[in-house]
Amino acid sequence: MKERIYNFSPGPAMLPYEVLQQASGDILNFDNSGIGICEISHRSKEFMHVAAEAEELLRELLNIPGNYRVLFLQGGASSQFFMIPMNLLGPGKKATYLNTGTWSKKSIKEAKLFGEIEVAFSSEEEKFNRVPSQGEYTVADDSEYLYFVSNNTIYGTQFSTMPVSEKMLVSDMSSDILSRPIDVSKFGVIFAGAQKNMGPSGVTTVIIRDDLLERCPENIPTMLKYSTHAEKESMFNTPPTFPIYIVGKVLKWLKENGGIGEMEKRNREKADQVYKVIDSGEYYRGHALVESRSMMNIAFNLPTPELEGKFIAEAAEKGLNGLKGHRSIGGCRASIYNAFPREGITRLVDFMQEFEKTNPA
Amino acid sequence: MKERIYNFSPGPAMLPYEVLQQASGDILNFDNSGIGICEISHRSKEFMHVAAEAEELLRELLNIPGNYRVLFLQGGASSQFFMIPMNLLGPGKKATYLNTGTWSKKSIKEAKLFGEIEVAFSSEEEKFNRVPSQGEYTVADDSEYLYFVSNNTIYGTQFSTMPVSEKMLVSDMSSDILSRPIDVSKFGVIFAGAQKNMGPSGVTTVIIRDDLLERCPENIPTMLKYSTHAEKESMFNTPPTFPIYIVGKVLKWLKENGGIGEMEKRNREKADQVYKVIDSGEYYRGHALVESRSMMNIAFNLPTPELEGKFIAEAAEKGLNGLKGHRSIGGCRASIYNAFPREGITRLVDFMQEFEKTNPA
Repeated sequence: MKERIYNFSPGPAMLPYEVLQQASGDILNFDNSGIGICEISHRSKEFMHVAAEAEELLRELLNIPGNYRVLFLQGGASSQFFMIPMNLLGPGKKATYLNTGTWSKKSIKEAKLFGEIEVAFSSEEEKFNRVPSQGEYTVADDSEYLYFVSNNTIYGTQFSTMPVSEKMLVSDMSSDILSRPIDVSKFGVIFAGAQKNMGPSGVTTVIIRDDLLERCPENIPTMLKYSTHAEKESMFNTPPTFPIYIVGKVLKWLKENGGIGEMEKRNREKADQVYKVIDSGEYYRGHALVESRSMMNIAFNLPTPELEGKFIAEAAEKGLNGLKGHRSIGGCRASIYNAFPREGITRLVDFMQEFEKTNPA
Repeated sequence: MKERIYNFSPGPAMLPYEVLQQASGDILNFDNSGIGICEISHRSKEFMHVAAEAEELLRELLNIPGNYRVLFLQGGASSQFFMIPMNLLGPGKKATYLNTGTWSKKSIKEAKLFGEIEVAFSSEEEKFNRVPSQGEYTVADDSEYLYFVSNNTIYGTQFSTMPVSEKMLVSDMSSDILSRPIDVSKFGVIFAGAQKNMGPSGVTTVIIRDDLLERCPENIPTMLKYSTHAEKESMFNTPPTFPIYIVGKVLKWLKENGGIGEMEKRNREKADQVYKVIDSGEYYRGHALVESRSMMNIAFNLPTPELEGKFIAEAAEKGLNGLKGHRSIGGCRASIYNAFPREGITRLVDFMQEFEKTNPA
């Protein structure tokens, strides 16, 4: 059997091995029930417990206030791009967006179908190499919310502190949820596709302030109203049971490993090791400006595209996979979410130093 | 370790054990790649192959013509209830629906948001105990399509032959897709949530005639257009990778076990065994009229609700689980999809006969 490799891909991404070992057993015989986790009814008491436990753990880890609902939905973060304005805006209503990358740009496009969208900041002309600092943009008085992507997977940028606004915040945290503590009470909606920091693909977590459920319009499809899913506790229709099961196990692993504070510390240490190599000379160049650097995704270049190709190929031979950057900016990218092991970082850093020596520019 | 039980639940439902055994290994180390199936990028060549193979097998098994697209989407069959009329109807356009149960009723509700809906048949007053026979309803000349649910999970009814119409057919086949041969060329759209006959919950298969993609309106959210998913081969956003992987394995199992013709034969034999006990006397009463009986879901009653409760509880003690009927009609229900083993049917039939003897009315 081949040794376990280190997979730096941006999502779906590495999961804690202990979680996979449990899943490997539960898929055949869940909790000694005589039937696998994928085969039990979502309305069985066994699965209801799985879903309830996942929600409880998320509430505990993120310290979610009682007036927020936690939903497990399908359709990816991409479906939230339109569900948020569809449910919270309407003709004549305005929202403010910060354009910091591909995913915020897509959100803006969808939001324009449902209201007036004010783009208060954009780093598009600088190839999205940074996020704004506080005070670099203003939010209109009549805006319903301030929307931002807390971490930009493709460009390797991240808000080091959350924007501050009198308006409620709405955030796509797909690539950094659970990586550091946040103050949920400042947000109207937080959402995240699971496949980066929470579990496998196929489930999206939505945390929504409960008074917002009253805004959901009547004349939209039942499945697209947040209120439908809140009323039925994410069981209006058959939920993606296996992805939810894995999310629960990942959250349990997170708690047992010290919670979010400890994750932030580890993530900081892991990212710093890589940035240290990047900053050690001219060979590696980070895409993001220093003050916007992400702890989750590190996008960088080598002196030439040829060297980048060689770097990616040789790394893969050494069990360091998925280091190719996104096609929109090229180069290399190391995605190192919560579950990415520290040993893998050491291996990457060693490889980067070795490669630089043996492949001078 | 507890012996494997027989789970009669309507979905998520039993999967082939061989498939689960493979998944149990692949979740730790997919195809000896050194990383688990849930952890690999949906854009990796490994996963692209998984998705392509699932599509090819489905095409082969259902004999899908070349001018049809196969999509793997999220959001369950419930999202198709509105996506179909949202994409295919529009102001002033009409469609015809057959109301044969809870799921068709829900579809009708959603469709009314997008066009004029003509309900050409309803068995609601008879507690949905049958589907219509050909000639019992008419389809308006200006109707765009005839919509029906091929098998009604809750009420245990099924169209023994598909409706015939000059209009294209649109069908929710969630609970009997792949259980018998069908002529795809009569359909505009066929869709099915995977969690009954195809795999785990979290993925919905949509088979759509390609000329219909041109009807998708411009001004709806990108994620809700069939054309988006067709253009990007179901990879516009991150697909539910693990559910798709399992669907592929189930399809492979199906092919290796003789394909759909063989499945129909087995399903007929399995269902007949249970109906034979029901028809043997007055003790068990089937909910569906004989000509509308389903091969997938058998809904039946015992002489009293008390006996039904005792029957369900004692069956569970013997490893025959999930026999409780849906709350809307009560009683008992045995869901016996393709992957439900023949031994489980024998065990159920023996138990039914024994229970009748030891618990006279």
